[in-house]
Amino acid sequence: MQTVYIVSGPAGVGKSTTSSRLVSVLKNSAYISGDDVSRMHINGRQKPWESKLELSLIWNNILSLTQNFILNGIDVVIDYVTFPDEAYWLKDKLKGLTENIVYVVLWTDHETLLKRDQLRLPEHQMGERCLILIEEFKESGFKDIHLLDTSQTNADAIHLVIEEIVNNKQYRLED
Amino acid sequence: MQTVYIVSGPAGVGKSTTSSRLVSVLKNSAYISGDDVSRMHINGRQKPWESKLELSLIWNNILSLTQNFILNGIDVVIDYVTFPDEAYWLKDKLKGLTENIVYVVLWTDHETLLKRDQLRLPEHQMGERCLILIEEFKESGFKDIHLLDTSQTNADAIHLVIEEIVNNKQYRLED
Repeated sequence: MQTVYIVSGPAGVGKSTTSSRLVSVLKNSAYISGDDVSRMHINGRQKPWESKLELSLIWNNILSLTQNFILNGIDVVIDYVTFPDEAYWLKDKLKGLTENIVYVVLWTDHETLLKRDQLRLPEHQMGERCLILIEEFKESGFKDIHLLDTSQTNADAIHLVIEEIVNNKQYRLED
Repeated sequence: MQTVYIVSGPAGVGKSTTSSRLVSVLKNSAYISGDDVSRMHINGRQKPWESKLELSLIWNNILSLTQNFILNGIDVVIDYVTFPDEAYWLKDKLKGLTENIVYVVLWTDHETLLKRDQLRLPEHQMGERCLILIEEFKESGFKDIHLLDTSQTNADAIHLVIEEIVNNKQYRLED
């Protein structure tokens, strides 16, 4: 049975780096960037955090891609700001195809998040939205077992983070 | 009713440039790059021109995205090497959602194709595959009415190409 890895967390926490590395250690694997899927909508696009319709379109696109990959025997890594209700929605929609949903919320200290945000291209910087996202995550009611704090992990120890995500059963999403 | 524009043609003919411009003149529009969709499959990926399974996965992903966009009232521009049987397959799968499928096969002279291919990043260069694609298109039995020859159009006249694609009914795919 294929596994779907949802790599979530606030902006700047290292979702893309972690996802790329994770997808590279899986034998048959696909990488879905929620931001890339979101950016396919060119004209008429609303900000997904301001429009439920836009957010729903993005999640339906992520779901369809995930279903197709799983049907072809491919593990999927989803790199996107994903709140618990969205992770459970996805798990529910994938019933019958796979039960293996791993939900990881990466976490680090505020200072690191803001520093990394400032390293982005100006048009990709989130600014204040970074801090708002942290609060939104805190209030989203996710279980601490899904939290993976990387503030003590330096960049060359990322393989330990990957091992943790792949092997530690605590990140599996249960009903 | 929404419109799906399939911008096809051999590598180096200007599909991406034309598609980007086309998507920007439509009011509510999405841009699906077949190459980007194809590259979501990281490990275990076969060359789509050597594996029917891989090609079928790519087209199913393109179809799913297209369906979701149309359901949200969004016109879709598909930028991919698309042969007539694939265009007709898509049209068939979209029945009930939309009848408006525009199929354009961009065309230009050999010399221009090879010159443009050499301008790409080495890992994106198609080399000989460029010429094979031209032959494959010639043998694919598409109707000449879908052909749009840009060899006489210089870069700053691209708006004329866009007008032609949007307004000239000859490019619509009929049963």
